[in-house]
Amino acid sequence: MFNKILIANRGEIAVRIIRACREMGIRTVAVYSEADRDALHTQLADEAVCIGKAQSSDSYLNMERILSATIATKAEAIHPGFGFLSENSRFVEMCEKCNVAFIGPSAEVISRMGNKSEAKNTMRKAKVPVVPGTKEPVYTVEQALEAVKEIGFPVMIKASAGGGGKGMRVAGNEQEFAKLFETAQQESVHSFSDNTMYLERFVENPRHVEVQILADKYGNVVHLGERDCSVQRRHQKMIEESPCIAISDDLRKKMGETAVRAAKAAGYESAGTIEFLLNQSGEFYFMEMNTRIQVEHPVTEFVSGVDLIKEQICIAAGEPLSVQQKDIEIRGHAMECRINAEDPERHFMPCPGKITDLHLPGGNGIRVDTAVYNDYAIPPYYDSMIAKIIVYDKDRRSAIRKMISALGEVAIEGVKTNVDFLYELLNQPDFQEGNITTDFIPQHYPDL
Amino acid sequence: MFNKILIANRGEIAVRIIRACREMGIRTVAVYSEADRDALHTQLADEAVCIGKAQSSDSYLNMERILSATIATKAEAIHPGFGFLSENSRFVEMCEKCNVAFIGPSAEVISRMGNKSEAKNTMRKAKVPVVPGTKEPVYTVEQALEAVKEIGFPVMIKASAGGGGKGMRVAGNEQEFAKLFETAQQESVHSFSDNTMYLERFVENPRHVEVQILADKYGNVVHLGERDCSVQRRHQKMIEESPCIAISDDLRKKMGETAVRAAKAAGYESAGTIEFLLNQSGEFYFMEMNTRIQVEHPVTEFVSGVDLIKEQICIAAGEPLSVQQKDIEIRGHAMECRINAEDPERHFMPCPGKITDLHLPGGNGIRVDTAVYNDYAIPPYYDSMIAKIIVYDKDRRSAIRKMISALGEVAIEGVKTNVDFLYELLNQPDFQEGNITTDFIPQHYPDL
Repeated sequence: MFNKILIANRGEIAVRIIRACREMGIRTVAVYSEADRDALHTQLADEAVCIGKAQSSDSYLNMERILSATIATKAEAIHPGFGFLSENSRFVEMCEKCNVAFIGPSAEVISRMGNKSEAKNTMRKAKVPVVPGTKEPVYTVEQALEAVKEIGFPVMIKASAGGGGKGMRVAGNEQEFAKLFETAQQESVHSFSDNTMYLERFVENPRHVEVQILADKYGNVVHLGERDCSVQRRHQKMIEESPCIAISDDLRKKMGETAVRAAKAAGYESAGTIEFLLNQSGEFYFMEMNTRIQVEHPVTEFVSGVDLIKEQICIAAGEPLSVQQKDIEIRGHAMECRINAEDPERHFMPCPGKITDLHLPGGNGIRVDTAVYNDYAIPPYYDSMIAKIIVYDKDRRSAIRKMISALGEVAIEGVKTNVDFLYELLNQPDFQEGNITTDFIPQHYPDL
Repeated sequence: MFNKILIANRGEIAVRIIRACREMGIRTVAVYSEADRDALHTQLADEAVCIGKAQSSDSYLNMERILSATIATKAEAIHPGFGFLSENSRFVEMCEKCNVAFIGPSAEVISRMGNKSEAKNTMRKAKVPVVPGTKEPVYTVEQALEAVKEIGFPVMIKASAGGGGKGMRVAGNEQEFAKLFETAQQESVHSFSDNTMYLERFVENPRHVEVQILADKYGNVVHLGERDCSVQRRHQKMIEESPCIAISDDLRKKMGETAVRAAKAAGYESAGTIEFLLNQSGEFYFMEMNTRIQVEHPVTEFVSGVDLIKEQICIAAGEPLSVQQKDIEIRGHAMECRINAEDPERHFMPCPGKITDLHLPGGNGIRVDTAVYNDYAIPPYYDSMIAKIIVYDKDRRSAIRKMISALGEVAIEGVKTNVDFLYELLNQPDFQEGNITTDFIPQHYPDL
């Protein structure tokens, strides 16, 4: 086992990793920017090294400085957390060259899964369902109509150069297809001077359901149930839960086994997540693989009882998985709310500043992961997430009630937060009944 | 189900009960003394009623005022927590007369279990093992020697009027018995002007092991595993854990079944605890029954997954138990440390005052039950316990490491606490190896 680990991150995830190390008897090195001198992760680690100015590019993204700190402190491994360098294959290569263990998959796997089309091809080969679509670009209505025969309706017409909804249309049937294709293509030519188009089966009202996996160096791969992360605002998850109530035990097993197959096909090692889109008929499609620990990993820890960070560390140290598939049992219901310092009245603009008063909930079935404290000044340079509240109870209804009660206890003075918005959202009848898709927020809050 | 419950308590247990009610959709009424205007339980409840001056006798022990507050706020039930009125059968009778549900057992059961000799007789009849001893007083060496034949050695010689160790001797064999008996009796005559003596089998190096039970109004009784609470300072528990590592599965089953039999014999209803002394050979003896929720209930909640406060409320509302014995599975290992505001350098004298800075641990497997907050002034009138840190992990070794890490994170400025003492204690090799008996503290800290 490692004697010392450097944590190349900040905020609550750095604190989370430091705690896991302390509990394992591993010494920790924090790195911090000049803006994070008083940060909790800086204080909590056994050693702390300042690696540069506040801007991430000067500090938490500065690979050379982080590796220098690792070598100088004789740390044997780096845990990257999420964000920052966690999915940077070049950094992983540099770690390998410096003979420092990177707690995560290999550079090659990160690189392969980071390339969306290569990832999809890998999955297709492994018979992991991928949203049907054109593998080659199409340029004319005729080519497109030929392709649609295989893909089926409804179909999404996408400009290769598109973005922000431009050059995108959804066609429900053959009658409207030609016209919509031409409009989308014209839009693309007009906006991006490019007429390259793709087609993809349109998944209606999908849920975002992801499967947590763990894989060791010896080919052992297990799945630890799924998370429903459908409640998103502009592709940013707000509430995550496990299990997903729209899934039968049969489907859960099938998705879990598919995720294991996907991880094996990718040659994966460490904790990882396979993200799927799930439609109303129970069909699911591979979206992407996250080759790192995720923000929402605590919901899986609650329902499975497995400490994912400790498993990551053990895997990187060459230990076999501590759990086998047959031992993993998903129990109860867990839910996470992300508390952000942001202003709901100003389009959820990040709202850094000094927390003048802080009270966070506690008690039975409540877990709070945070790096903020009373009188802490949230720096303006980084992510606006300041805390995660995770609750665990016997079923979804109880978990929602517990979360509502917990959010009702939160007091954060000095900065604006999304707590009231989350509170309101949890009280929505559609949320309470589990009618959640990735369109939940746009449908219920069209003004956002 | 009740619409509104009054909580006749303060501090962390009042907050714990308020949270359970919030999660169940039940409105809450707090009562508070003049010293508790700013207390967390006062702030957290839906309504709060001031019931008198700071002294407990004027407020939290004032039955009339508490019942008046209950009637005035139209609360249908009272949760007494622990301490204060929780085991006061007269208060329970008054509740009955006022048509207010008392969340706990009946006045009759509280009264019967509160009388130690009556409790022991009840247990003997139900074939629950009780420490063998004289049922009638003895006055002479001859009477005593006759009784010892049945009781066996080692035997504890106790003055009926004794206290603080006076008039008490332990005799290991017949040779030394007569002399020790006479010395003890003389001491009693000298100190208390009383020559009434009792004899009791002396349990050597025992563990304090207690079994949590739940019983409903319909005769259903279940046990939820045991807690080892051997680490005590002057009969005050400091560290509690579940399961007890000295117990085999067979013995666990036997103790659990015995506890259920004890509860049934007592005609018990609600959550309760049967306290046993366990000797090194695996023999156990009934000590007493606690007819209330206990401070250390969270360790059982962690390993069993059952919310004991919610069960208490449901039982009082006439619902059957939500769990059956076959569904109860004890998983992992939980441990609790009681954080007290007290001065270890001055014989652990209570040390009230203002908390000028506060940081409590959080994260995976950490539960903190507390009613203190930053800048909170601990009043001098009540118990010195200010927080409970409860950890949960896969096994005892991991739980201890987690607790050590968690205690290392605690920062409480402004008042002295026992945190460093607990930290030191958890690092004792004997504690880590599980060699704990009720003599652990006197043996390891003879200076205390």
